Amino acid sequence: MTKTKTVSVLGAGNLGAQIAYRLAFYGHDVTSYDINDDAIEAAKRRVQTIAGNYTRDLEGVSEDTAAAAAAAITFTTTLEDAARDADYVIEAVPENLEIKRDTYTRLARFLPEKTVLLTNTSTLLPSDFKDATGRPEKFLAYHFANNIHIANVVEVMPTRDTNPEIVEQVIEFAQTMGMRPIRLHREHAKYIINSFYSTWVDQARDMWVKGVADIETLDEVAAMIAGSEQLSPFLAQDNTGLGVAYEITKNRAATGDPLAAEFSRRLKQEFIDKGNIGKESGQGFYVYDENGNPTGLSEAAKKKYPPVDPGK
Amino acid sequence: MTKTKTVSVLGAGNLGAQIAYRLAFYGHDVTSYDINDDAIEAAKRRVQTIAGNYTRDLEGVSEDTAAAAAAAITFTTTLEDAARDADYVIEAVPENLEIKRDTYTRLARFLPEKTVLLTNTSTLLPSDFKDATGRPEKFLAYHFANNIHIANVVEVMPTRDTNPEIVEQVIEFAQTMGMRPIRLHREHAKYIINSFYSTWVDQARDMWVKGVADIETLDEVAAMIAGSEQLSPFLAQDNTGLGVAYEITKNRAATGDPLAAEFSRRLKQEFIDKGNIGKESGQGFYVYDENGNPTGLSEAAKKKYPPVDPGK
Repeated sequence: MTKTKTVSVLGAGNLGAQIAYRLAFYGHDVTSYDINDDAIEAAKRRVQTIAGNYTRDLEGVSEDTAAAAAAAITFTTTLEDAARDADYVIEAVPENLEIKRDTYTRLARFLPEKTVLLTNTSTLLPSDFKDATGRPEKFLAYHFANNIHIANVVEVMPTRDTNPEIVEQVIEFAQTMGMRPIRLHREHAKYIINSFYSTWVDQARDMWVKGVADIETLDEVAAMIAGSEQLSPFLAQDNTGLGVAYEITKNRAATGDPLAAEFSRRLKQEFIDKGNIGKESGQGFYVYDENGNPTGLSEAAKKKYPPVDPGK
Repeated sequence: MTKTKTVSVLGAGNLGAQIAYRLAFYGHDVTSYDINDDAIEAAKRRVQTIAGNYTRDLEGVSEDTAAAAAAAITFTTTLEDAARDADYVIEAVPENLEIKRDTYTRLARFLPEKTVLLTNTSTLLPSDFKDATGRPEKFLAYHFANNIHIANVVEVMPTRDTNPEIVEQVIEFAQTMGMRPIRLHREHAKYIINSFYSTWVDQARDMWVKGVADIETLDEVAAMIAGSEQLSPFLAQDNTGLGVAYEITKNRAATGDPLAAEFSRRLKQEFIDKGNIGKESGQGFYVYDENGNPTGLSEAAKKKYPPVDPGK
């Protein structure tokens, strides 16, 4: 019995490309699907960058090994090719319910009986579109963090309809692609990692906007409690990029939260519109030197803003 | 100009005794006040234990040095003595609004003009009783964590009425007693440390009660995100003691939260009523060996409980 599986990855964006590469690196037969030739060309470039990251960040990975994994990926623009003989299909298409439903519906007719469907959705629940898969008992969420060659964990989250044996099979499969599975027993919005992380960062955003404390204090206290700088909330947002923080807080603002509204306003007007989108651009809440080390708070982060009352 | 201050600490319970000892250890003139002779006798025993902790936990602290600090504390059962010539009065009486108001009201007539009043309240806001002080411009919160010889930070939180110069003076004073001041600009329930910490632990409690994940998974994922075990929520609750977790979640349950209600029920019936109150008793969510190291989950933590729906 071989552990080599035939796996297709739908969507070759940032995470989709990382997942496809990961599978190839661990010896699985991989097909990467995206909607047109331009997307596939972009995917091929992404895969080369990822191969470079493996060589740079992981010990004992030669350029030849990394290049061989990149070369082993098959690319396609048809769902029929992606479905063919697949043991697993991992879906990483855009976070839009209609796109996801449409993709699963069109895929269904090509799928062999054996295929297990895994969605990487972050903001939707798998049960929101499980009916479109035609096989809810063989469908569950399989959620990656970014930079999966470093953060090599995957959250395995079934719906009420998922066959428990399929869950066990997926837990084993995760290990064959070098991922540590995190087992959820039932659906939970934001999974585990982001449930912890986002409430933590939200606390920091709220305290800053309310004028309770300044950014340096909040980051220092967070590091003290956590025992490391990984959870310093403003440093962390600079790392992820302020565009991501903006999208999240804009959505929260839309629910009527005045603190999130002010935070997203500050992000846009004081940072993003000025080209300061985080560590990647050399400046966000902090200013970064050429080695990517923070040298101090940025002017926009130090500025005194009028405190906002939560209004509740 | 000497940095030695005359300081009184009201309340000689767990934290009050630690604060008094800390001040004496750093060379301040300290008076420890409590309401009667029995309380004072208990305080004297506490101070001896604290002296032992300094010798055990801190490098370069001899038994003689530690004993000298303990011997330097003056004890009293009258507020008149506590008020006399005080530069600072640090209040650490029970967390009860009426007790606090009554203490400040009775204290006020004895106080010299110069005295700055600092409250260690955790669950109340200083503005809830600032009027009882008779000097709200010289009154602010000065909040310690437990085990202040290790967690040597203090949260400095003014009300709207606090004179900003007094805040600066208190920030300097904190450093003369070996505490790192954390500056808050305005009142915020739960301060900074507990705003972060309690939302984090609440997430874990909720996910466990909802049946999303088991305790070991939640602690492991938390440690992975935080970069250390300091924020593993169930280990941390064992460290603090499950009695504390029970009081907190019982209060949260009283607001109508079904997840907190179930958590506090499990704590009481499955742990506390069986004498398993955390690391101190050798068992809580984890079982501990004689060196205080966790050896695995306890039976009560491993048990399968029916998942609870949040009902909202």
